[in-house]
Amino acid sequence: MQKLPVVLLVSSLAFTATSLAGDVTPIAPAPNGIEFPADYPNWRVISVSHRTDNKTMRAVLGNAIAIEAARAGNTHPWPDGAVLGKVVWKQTTETHWSAAIAPDKFVHAEFMFRDSRKWADNGTGWGWARWVGNAQKPYGKDAGFEQECITCHTPVRDNDWVFTTPALFPTVSR
Amino acid sequence: MQKLPVVLLVSSLAFTATSLAGDVTPIAPAPNGIEFPADYPNWRVISVSHRTDNKTMRAVLGNAIAIEAARAGNTHPWPDGAVLGKVVWKQTTETHWSAAIAPDKFVHAEFMFRDSRKWADNGTGWGWARWVGNAQKPYGKDAGFEQECITCHTPVRDNDWVFTTPALFPTVSR
Repeated sequence: MQKLPVVLLVSSLAFTATSLAGDVTPIAPAPNGIEFPADYPNWRVISVSHRTDNKTMRAVLGNAIAIEAARAGNTHPWPDGAVLGKVVWKQTTETHWSAAIAPDKFVHAEFMFRDSRKWADNGTGWGWARWVGNAQKPYGKDAGFEQECITCHTPVRDNDWVFTTPALFPTVSR
Repeated sequence: MQKLPVVLLVSSLAFTATSLAGDVTPIAPAPNGIEFPADYPNWRVISVSHRTDNKTMRAVLGNAIAIEAARAGNTHPWPDGAVLGKVVWKQTTETHWSAAIAPDKFVHAEFMFRDSRKWADNGTGWGWARWVGNAQKPYGKDAGFEQECITCHTPVRDNDWVFTTPALFPTVSR
């Protein structure tokens, strides 16, 4: 009898965990096995950009290792463990300021995962992945999709395959 | 004799702390008394924008209360304690992609501090502040500078004085 409350508590916690998990649609990994980095909306800013050719606005975010590297200027090459995330929205005119361009609908989030050993075979030392639309559907039919990423990034092969230049913050707390 | 190493250690730590502090230039508060929020480069993203009229790129960041409000759609009004930070850079063409606009030199960082009681007298419920350039010099000769901010933001009086519409992330971990 003494153990009954504990059993009930554990059972109750398990039920709660299941219920909470049930509210979240699981997001499939990329075809090359990279898991969706679900916490990326909480990553910090490396830079921003406006692509006038395809009319999109972008926030370039980084995980903790990438942020530390970006702010220390340690990006040639980026260190193992760094992950860069580019969040892409269609552009629109800012509702309240007609001369400003701002994000509209979410398009996709795309990522570069630096692991120089794990991804040595693709010739870049980066694992590539993209999740599309509000459903965050993994991009690509099979692992060969990486070649599309790499082909597009070939002009920046000598910049460690990265287009983004980290934006300068005058004061950084570390 | 047994305590000597401890004394040396404490002394050494104190010296290190002093040396590190000496590397940081203290940043003065705004003329209305608002303290510089030194940690803002580590805040998360609310949105991004490109002002084509003055050729600047912006990242709109928020402290934890602002991020929670933005992602819950709880911004009419923004809750007390929310701080919005707009980081502004001159625009340039992305080095490696000529159709992309990206940040160049840092211009300033400007902030809105929501405290509906503390800032009731200026009619907005927000405290306003801006720190300029790499030296992060507080903007304004005296507390009257706030009127400049408020005048410029008057077109968005009915949007709780805020120009920015939070960008939509499809998946948010909380």
